[in-house]
Amino acid sequence: LPKSFSANQPKTIRLYPLSNYTFGTKDTQPEEDPSVIARLKRLEEHYEQHGMRRTCEGILVCHEHNHPHVLMLQIANAFFKLPGDYLPASAEEISGFKSRLNERLAPQNTSTDPNSDWEIGDTLAQWWRPNFETFMYPFLPGHVTRPKECKKLYLIQLPRKKVLSVPKNMKLLAVPLFELYDNTARYGPQLSAIPHLLSRYRFEFV
Amino acid sequence: LPKSFSANQPKTIRLYPLSNYTFGTKDTQPEEDPSVIARLKRLEEHYEQHGMRRTCEGILVCHEHNHPHVLMLQIANAFFKLPGDYLPASAEEISGFKSRLNERLAPQNTSTDPNSDWEIGDTLAQWWRPNFETFMYPFLPGHVTRPKECKKLYLIQLPRKKVLSVPKNMKLLAVPLFELYDNTARYGPQLSAIPHLLSRYRFEFV
Ligand SMILES: [Zn+2]
Ligand SMILES: [Zn+2]
Ligand SMILES: [Zn+2]
Ligand SMILES: [Zn+2]
Repeated sequence: LPKSFSANQPKTIRLYPLSNYTFGTKDTQPEEDPSVIARLKRLEEHYEQHGMRRTCEGILVCHEHNHPHVLMLQIANAFFKLPGDYLPASAEEISGFKSRLNERLAPQNTSTDPNSDWEIGDTLAQWWRPNFETFMYPFLPGHVTRPKECKKLYLIQLPRKKVLSVPKNMKLLAVPLFELYDNTARYGPQLSAIPHLLSRYRFEFV
Repeated sequence: LPKSFSANQPKTIRLYPLSNYTFGTKDTQPEEDPSVIARLKRLEEHYEQHGMRRTCEGILVCHEHNHPHVLMLQIANAFFKLPGDYLPASAEEISGFKSRLNERLAPQNTSTDPNSDWEIGDTLAQWWRPNFETFMYPFLPGHVTRPKECKKLYLIQLPRKKVLSVPKNMKLLAVPLFELYDNTARYGPQLSAIPHLLSRYRFEFV
């Protein structure tokens, strides 16, 4: 009998098929900033008032054909992003993140308790922005003591069924790990690293 | 006061300076296989007799200038590898891995209990080899039900002080995360992904 090979691993993650989820649409959500320069300018103002910006994004995982897929937003048929956003300075981390996920993906006019809706799992990565510039790194570079932004990525285990509502100016796509892997050209450094971040888990496909 | 941003994270990892570790040398350890073809041939024989090969490698972390560094072996001034190796078919995972680490890095002729020497931490990644070929992936590709090898990478927190002994045909280097990051050309896909694997941790530099 082959010997076991599962020591020191996290709990196995149960994934449901993509077809278990229902996708609706809701009102357009325009970009908050008209340009990269405007976004960095607003970050600078945030930093002066409140210190480091805290940003939370979710890695929502399901499966097709027994292969993990990550749910991703595509904006204007162009760039991809994970659901999530920066937190208001006064927000508590987890409840603030759930509000951001609901703004983006919950059906409009629902009366359910937003905080009961998302199972926020392990932190999978932290990306640091050392300066008011576009570059972020998956570590705090040496001698940087006052980073301007920290973006945390969390694993989000989807429940058996869920209704998601997507702003009209966005598409929600299920992207397989093999498509993200080694594909920085199309998905950028953050999204193409997701297969690495998930590689310590074993998955159960139901 | 800035709000907290440390929810759903693993325990902070304490790192000691590289200068706390003492490096000696020991007898040359020649490559077990003279060529890639010979290595894949031996893997095939292992698979026929014992099933999937189990390989364990350690990510040993310390710091210099408050930046994490990973200890890596360089062979013949050429390629880099992590300490570790495949397990004998009959070996238990953790004790077998500790024996492999001791073969590579423990001082010769020591009488200490090898199993008490290494603190094997979280699984950080799993790399799968679907065929008797050189390609490995950080996920099990769809429809692959009988992978030929699984390589697990584990975090190894070094104690405050330790004496390590390096085979004469190898060098042990402390490579900073910023050097590994985005450097597949020099370090290959597995080692250049280490910054991503460590990015969910916060480090304490003592
Ligand atoms: Zn299929
Ligand atoms: Zn698909
Ligand atoms: Zn320095
Ligand atoms: Zn250094």
